[in-house]
Amino acid sequence: MTQADIGLIGLAVMGQNLALNINDHGFVVSVFNRTTSKVGEFLEGPAKDTNIIGAHSLEEFFRSLKRPRRVILMVKAGAPVDEFIAHCLPFLDKGDILIDGGNSLFTDTNRRCADLAAKGIIFIGAGVSGGEEGARNGPSIMPGGNAAGWPHVKPIFQAISAKVENGEPCCDWVGDAGSGHYVKMIHNGIEYGDMQLICEAYQLMRSGLGLTAQELEQVFKEWNKTSLDSYLIEITAQIFGQKDADGTPLVDNILDVAGQKGTGKWTIINALDLGMPLTLMGEAVFARCLSALKEERVEASRVLKGPSPTFSGDRKAFIENIRQGLYASKIISYTQGFMLMRQAAKDYNWKLNYGAIALMWRGGCIIRSRFLGDIKEAFSRQPDLKSLCLDSFFQKELNQTQQGWRKVVATAAEMGIPLPCFSSALAFYDGYRTERLPANLLQAQRDFFGAHTYERIDKPRGEFFHTNWTGTGGKVSSSSYNA
Amino acid sequence: MTQADIGLIGLAVMGQNLALNINDHGFVVSVFNRTTSKVGEFLEGPAKDTNIIGAHSLEEFFRSLKRPRRVILMVKAGAPVDEFIAHCLPFLDKGDILIDGGNSLFTDTNRRCADLAAKGIIFIGAGVSGGEEGARNGPSIMPGGNAAGWPHVKPIFQAISAKVENGEPCCDWVGDAGSGHYVKMIHNGIEYGDMQLICEAYQLMRSGLGLTAQELEQVFKEWNKTSLDSYLIEITAQIFGQKDADGTPLVDNILDVAGQKGTGKWTIINALDLGMPLTLMGEAVFARCLSALKEERVEASRVLKGPSPTFSGDRKAFIENIRQGLYASKIISYTQGFMLMRQAAKDYNWKLNYGAIALMWRGGCIIRSRFLGDIKEAFSRQPDLKSLCLDSFFQKELNQTQQGWRKVVATAAEMGIPLPCFSSALAFYDGYRTERLPANLLQAQRDFFGAHTYERIDKPRGEFFHTNWTGTGGKVSSSSYNA
Repeated sequence: MTQADIGLIGLAVMGQNLALNINDHGFVVSVFNRTTSKVGEFLEGPAKDTNIIGAHSLEEFFRSLKRPRRVILMVKAGAPVDEFIAHCLPFLDKGDILIDGGNSLFTDTNRRCADLAAKGIIFIGAGVSGGEEGARNGPSIMPGGNAAGWPHVKPIFQAISAKVENGEPCCDWVGDAGSGHYVKMIHNGIEYGDMQLICEAYQLMRSGLGLTAQELEQVFKEWNKTSLDSYLIEITAQIFGQKDADGTPLVDNILDVAGQKGTGKWTIINALDLGMPLTLMGEAVFARCLSALKEERVEASRVLKGPSPTFSGDRKAFIENIRQGLYASKIISYTQGFMLMRQAAKDYNWKLNYGAIALMWRGGCIIRSRFLGDIKEAFSRQPDLKSLCLDSFFQKELNQTQQGWRKVVATAAEMGIPLPCFSSALAFYDGYRTERLPANLLQAQRDFFGAHTYERIDKPRGEFFHTNWTGTGGKVSSSSYNA
Repeated sequence: MTQADIGLIGLAVMGQNLALNINDHGFVVSVFNRTTSKVGEFLEGPAKDTNIIGAHSLEEFFRSLKRPRRVILMVKAGAPVDEFIAHCLPFLDKGDILIDGGNSLFTDTNRRCADLAAKGIIFIGAGVSGGEEGARNGPSIMPGGNAAGWPHVKPIFQAISAKVENGEPCCDWVGDAGSGHYVKMIHNGIEYGDMQLICEAYQLMRSGLGLTAQELEQVFKEWNKTSLDSYLIEITAQIFGQKDADGTPLVDNILDVAGQKGTGKWTIINALDLGMPLTLMGEAVFARCLSALKEERVEASRVLKGPSPTFSGDRKAFIENIRQGLYASKIISYTQGFMLMRQAAKDYNWKLNYGAIALMWRGGCIIRSRFLGDIKEAFSRQPDLKSLCLDSFFQKELNQTQQGWRKVVATAAEMGIPLPCFSSALAFYDGYRTERLPANLLQAQRDFFGAHTYERIDKPRGEFFHTNWTGTGGKVSSSSYNA
């Protein structure tokens, strides 16, 4: 029987395309699927005339693999991963390598790494981004976990991954335990933000300026020649160009209801856990929630009043302002994402290479862009850069775009067009560069009603004070009861 | 030995004040504390000349109580509650009633209710709000859990709770399982929002208009005579009037670093779980996170540029605009909070009485206000009101204040002063009343890169379509792999 270089379990779209991609690079892939009829369909369909081999039982599947076995799981995140690991365990030998290529929660990957290490199995959690096209032609791959497995999968993963202009692969070792899936989670959170920012620019041009799909296609084509040059801007232009069966723009016939149940939500929960202000991604996730309340919005639209959204001014200049606002907001979104990764590295004791992460995202994945090349350069200049927006290049970019950005946020507020992420990003920028925020009042309030104590500007940090504000309260400070 | 009406465990500030409050209303309270020296200190200190009795062991404590025993735990939320329950269990008989008066996570209360019910013990999770003053003089109490216990604690809880003008107590049965603590969690999330909104108004008047603490005291005193009339506005005025030892305003000497580790965060996580867009509270929690990055902000303030925050215009009119913006944002914040409760009632199968909840919050608690009376009335008019801002009164209020609100958000954006919650609330209002959001583009993007499918405006909901956008992708739609 042919000895396959690597095995792949799970023949949904991502699994199929990844198998075809690996085959293209000269590796022999053996595939398996729980519903085994899919194996035959795949071999006779998309995998026809390839070297891909199929197995109809796990026993046959594992027999087909070279040792140490390398097996990629491409199954739905959550319980199915644990189930498949349990199914595989009887067939695995010490030193075999199991790779979870799905969108698993990083804490699950932490657990699986430790559990399998105790059994002598090497576990890797690899974030894979790029959608079906990426999986087929070169995704971004973010592997982390048990580093002993990296030499065994590196040649395959770096061969099949996307490459940047100079040929560097968009795949490198991220770090211990669940760090690969963690970085993929941040990628997805950023993806939520990028998509919502584009949607807000669209909303403002559609409802505020009355641009048609055809005009929008041109705008996004132009924008793709600027600092916004990216996969998402490119496909947005293509989407506006796509015609429906009756010749009308397809985008106009799609329902404005989006789902959110995945990694965007996890990113926000993690940000709350680590105490990092990921405001833009938070607004992006919530914007999807609001979109889902379609019936309620239709009802509200009939009774809640607003100004009439008519723009009188230089339209071309305003479109350029929108572009600047989108770009500046994007800088803030990535600033927040990298802030969270820095905090995670500290809290989880991971050594993250931020420049390498930017490079992994530079190609192959959904958020790939010229911009990520600039981020890579910022971290090359200063590997321990505290915050992306403090880098000299991005400082300058923010300074040059902020006037347009402010104008767009202000104009949309006056026109009644919602830009939750544009305005949240601006509020973050202005808050981040504010030496003295109003939290002194907040601390006074908390001490007033809850004896929570406060620190003083003229005393060392860590020294806490309580004031008897009303003259009637007790002297007991709140130590064990926190509101 | 005297037979006490009720027992209380945990003599931090809230526990002490609650015990004194119960005593004031003619009930005999027996108290216990893990560090037993605190019992003596309390009896000889604040509880001197009261009928409060103290116990120095749990055995003695439980012996002092009438049957069925009623015991309030006022200990730190989390593991300490489980530990004290375990300590109490050997002394409890079937039918005894254990009440957790701390800020427990509602899912913990769900679990404890079920576990203790299986042992024949009646468990109640009661949210208590009002800080130390409230606990002493009349808090808002939100009890839920095992309804068999309600008749036994109702006389005591309604006696010690705050009352509204007509004498109605700010305490009523909320519902099953953890619903009492859930409603308290929402209360705290709203409290986060209320406090942050006040802080933003402060920041704008301090940094934008250059108002002194003395002038701010007057502004907030005036505001407290308007629809903003509330405990938090009242104490804010008092805070601005408070002088430090050297005669300068104390608030100016307090460090602008606020903590967040509690129920605000839980509210956002729950909102993400239930898919409800609680944008304002999210921004409020993140504003505290940003305040905590003090050193980073100081550094950023030196290099990140912005406009000069000077206001030229009618200052008095602008202050009135700020008031309107604060009021309108507050309506949105409560709209979001009640939306989340409505979804929770649906998902967790609770029967929540929203008017009764507004009444419980009307007095005693931190967010007590005239405004909550208006909310109570809205739910009296229409108990199944889908959304607060759809009520005729609040519709009108939003319509009358929105011009000022928009002007404030726009002006702050141009001036470079961060108003994350004001602007998030406005974006929500404008999004909520938008029949057609840009999520159609988002769905097109997701279908483009991930074959996630979309719905159409001309087809029934639940019918999903996939377009082969590039002409090269496969026909496999994404069923088991979700980005």
